[in-house]
Amino acid sequence: MNIPVNNMQTLLEQLRHIVGDAHVLTDGNLTAWEQDWRQRSHGKALAVLRPASTDEVARVVKACAAYRASNPTSRVSIVPQGGNTGLVVGATPDDSGQQIVLSLQRMNAVRGLDAANLTMTVEAGCILQTLQERAQADGFLFPLSLAAEGSCTIGGNLGTNAGGTQVVRFGNTRDLCLGLEVVTAQGDIWNGLSGLRKDNTGYDLRDLFIGSEGTLGIITAATLKLYPLPAARLTAWAAVPSLEAAVNLLGLAQRQLGSGLTGFEAMGQFALSLVAKHYPHLHLPLFQGSPFCVLLENSDHESEAHACSQFERVLEAALEQGCVTNAVVAESLTQAKALWQIRESIPLAQAQEGLNIKHDISVPVSSIPEFVRSTDALLRQVFPGVRLVNFGHLGDGNLHYNVQAPEGVDAADFLRQQEEQVNTLVFDSVTRFEGSISAEHGIGSLKVDQLEKYKSPIALEMMRAIKHALDPQNLLNPARVVRVIKF
Amino acid sequence: MNIPVNNMQTLLEQLRHIVGDAHVLTDGNLTAWEQDWRQRSHGKALAVLRPASTDEVARVVKACAAYRASNPTSRVSIVPQGGNTGLVVGATPDDSGQQIVLSLQRMNAVRGLDAANLTMTVEAGCILQTLQERAQADGFLFPLSLAAEGSCTIGGNLGTNAGGTQVVRFGNTRDLCLGLEVVTAQGDIWNGLSGLRKDNTGYDLRDLFIGSEGTLGIITAATLKLYPLPAARLTAWAAVPSLEAAVNLLGLAQRQLGSGLTGFEAMGQFALSLVAKHYPHLHLPLFQGSPFCVLLENSDHESEAHACSQFERVLEAALEQGCVTNAVVAESLTQAKALWQIRESIPLAQAQEGLNIKHDISVPVSSIPEFVRSTDALLRQVFPGVRLVNFGHLGDGNLHYNVQAPEGVDAADFLRQQEEQVNTLVFDSVTRFEGSISAEHGIGSLKVDQLEKYKSPIALEMMRAIKHALDPQNLLNPARVVRVIKF
Repeated sequence: MNIPVNNMQTLLEQLRHIVGDAHVLTDGNLTAWEQDWRQRSHGKALAVLRPASTDEVARVVKACAAYRASNPTSRVSIVPQGGNTGLVVGATPDDSGQQIVLSLQRMNAVRGLDAANLTMTVEAGCILQTLQERAQADGFLFPLSLAAEGSCTIGGNLGTNAGGTQVVRFGNTRDLCLGLEVVTAQGDIWNGLSGLRKDNTGYDLRDLFIGSEGTLGIITAATLKLYPLPAARLTAWAAVPSLEAAVNLLGLAQRQLGSGLTGFEAMGQFALSLVAKHYPHLHLPLFQGSPFCVLLENSDHESEAHACSQFERVLEAALEQGCVTNAVVAESLTQAKALWQIRESIPLAQAQEGLNIKHDISVPVSSIPEFVRSTDALLRQVFPGVRLVNFGHLGDGNLHYNVQAPEGVDAADFLRQQEEQVNTLVFDSVTRFEGSISAEHGIGSLKVDQLEKYKSPIALEMMRAIKHALDPQNLLNPARVVRVIKF
Repeated sequence: MNIPVNNMQTLLEQLRHIVGDAHVLTDGNLTAWEQDWRQRSHGKALAVLRPASTDEVARVVKACAAYRASNPTSRVSIVPQGGNTGLVVGATPDDSGQQIVLSLQRMNAVRGLDAANLTMTVEAGCILQTLQERAQADGFLFPLSLAAEGSCTIGGNLGTNAGGTQVVRFGNTRDLCLGLEVVTAQGDIWNGLSGLRKDNTGYDLRDLFIGSEGTLGIITAATLKLYPLPAARLTAWAAVPSLEAAVNLLGLAQRQLGSGLTGFEAMGQFALSLVAKHYPHLHLPLFQGSPFCVLLENSDHESEAHACSQFERVLEAALEQGCVTNAVVAESLTQAKALWQIRESIPLAQAQEGLNIKHDISVPVSSIPEFVRSTDALLRQVFPGVRLVNFGHLGDGNLHYNVQAPEGVDAADFLRQQEEQVNTLVFDSVTRFEGSISAEHGIGSLKVDQLEKYKSPIALEMMRAIKHALDPQNLLNPARVVRVIKF
């Protein structure tokens, strides 16, 4: 016998009973949960829920699913949220007032660390930096590293399959996860918290949930891979005469350093000039006269002296082959941090310069030079004077290929008027080079329409079938990633 | 208007039209396709099809799907097959005479190699060893390596997410694949042949097909990761006093060699004694008096001299700490090959000794010693005199924990009478240690019932939902991996 729960107030009372009055927020300023990080969208939540345990998450989902079953016209749904640092409006509510923000932030326990197995089991709400520090305290490396690490959560990293600066060696978040605990759209708890490196017992549910942006299930905990801490991590900075040269340098470094190469970032001259302009106290080496600079990181399990000699060997060969015109190796941790700070200041300097149209694209590494050349030319032809802020994770073929208004043109006007055309031009070009319109940030609600346009219809059809199979009520983060036509 | 095709002969004519008369085999000796590698099952195929292209595969699937749609009681289905070297009866037909074996062996082109992107795009029927050699000829490493590499195909490796001896560094086949081309159960071609290291545009369809053993779609091609060839690969052999010591040695080697550690195999004394007995011409170092020996491989991007000094550093520390009692480093490629040959001779020596009950289990690395101690004890209690052939990929927590009849007991009798009870005892123990009943071989038809017993019901339910969503006719490899109750 189903007793219909027709009243939204009754649902809210049930939710208060499950997570506690103090953790069901409906009044006051909810901006921290309702607005996305880039402030592109400010929605209206039915409530913000802050459960403390997997069991509470499961009961919340069951209550909402039952409410939907009893109220077929209801559009109540659940938006899982971590640190709310996403860049594609995937974790904040729409303006319907019907979406429950389910914040995982209170679930922030490290459940365990298995040194001999090189794994750590953690809850979804753990802050990334806390996990890096916890691993390091035990003598291990958790390599995921990205700009928002001080406030993003591992649940969000998993939900979006976050990338960052260490992907060239360690892969994306997907590659760092062995097992998951997930609350399904039915409110069941799947304990898939495996610490196994090999397990071929059925379909890869783990990787289906990773990167699904909370649309298929709610990740509540994960078992993550750890690595031994290297004996030394060195950073170098090289001026390169072209992107072709940068690609050649990458190949050389990969051959000579193997998986010692843990970072390879490229930065265009205009991007660096913005840093020099807006952060004049930073010392930028070797960038004048160089179309691109490259930041390299070498992690070594032997010693700092060995890391240094290996780096010198690579850079000497690169100078000889002409793929580097000049280079420096940081001689202290302080110097290394200063070099990374330049790289990390680019988005901030760009913001100082004014609004801009951001892209997060990838193409095969071999296609990077030709992609940039031809796309630069197209953009300059259509938008004379346009300024291109080009930087990113060249080792992964991932560029933040951003478009800034011509000098003297109002940046907000340019964004408003040209964003769609700029996006179309860039994404069409990406598609010609068999690339991705979203390399590491995901789809969220911001790129749903673009995905419909650029993704293979057969892939989209399979995605819809899977969404319908796992979440037939369309209860979890609807209209994100892929829109389901009929429900 | 659907014109019903009621006649199986008409379907076969259509298939002959698609792939050519010469490549539809219905008569003569079809044992090579109908019998599995371990000869545990000999089925009866409706036909063996050998298509030459993705387009032909798609048209075959469309024809079969249409036939099924027009003949609702028909049980015609498709069993994809690669090199037919699988160990769990997943790629041979049942005895219904209704299953079409779709062999991918004629699709064996290397479509391209992108050196700067470190990728290679290949068709499903390529023999693994051919791909290793092709990569090496261009100066690259394709690291997947396993006993059947001379005859298994990459399509089968992907379908089963094969493991092997390099997983400790490079992961399973899943980790070596960036993109797939798949023929869906509807006969559509999904071109997901991405060479991208980062692509967060929707659900991870790639990893869903990998390891699904041909039950969700037919993998026709893949884009694979390549690595630079190391400057040197050295092999060492160490006697260890216990499995605890072996686990400690693993940790030490991982700390000091980092990802230079590309192989870590453990072998129990009884397993090695069988090699000594049946292959007396092989020289087995250091195994007498040692409960376990370990084979280590160190890949180095600097030089052979550096690899050697690094290895010596690890082994000296291990001797000092007591986790190794004695060790040798191979001084030539010939010596290294001889050490690997010992490892690879264990399954053959075991076969010489008589039939045995094979397991392919994994537990967290940290649990290996206790798992083996307690499971050994349980087995010896229930089956006095039983002999345990224990060896495997210790670096991945994966053991081939095989059970041989007591000396003097008829091996075939023992297998027939005790297999089920032995399996139950071992799998129950694996489950207590949060392990996997199939680490690298998959489920096929051999372990379908066991999966029902040992896998989480929630995971099984999601698997069934996904199978139904992608293959609603249950056309592809039915009753393998997961049985779908209602269709």
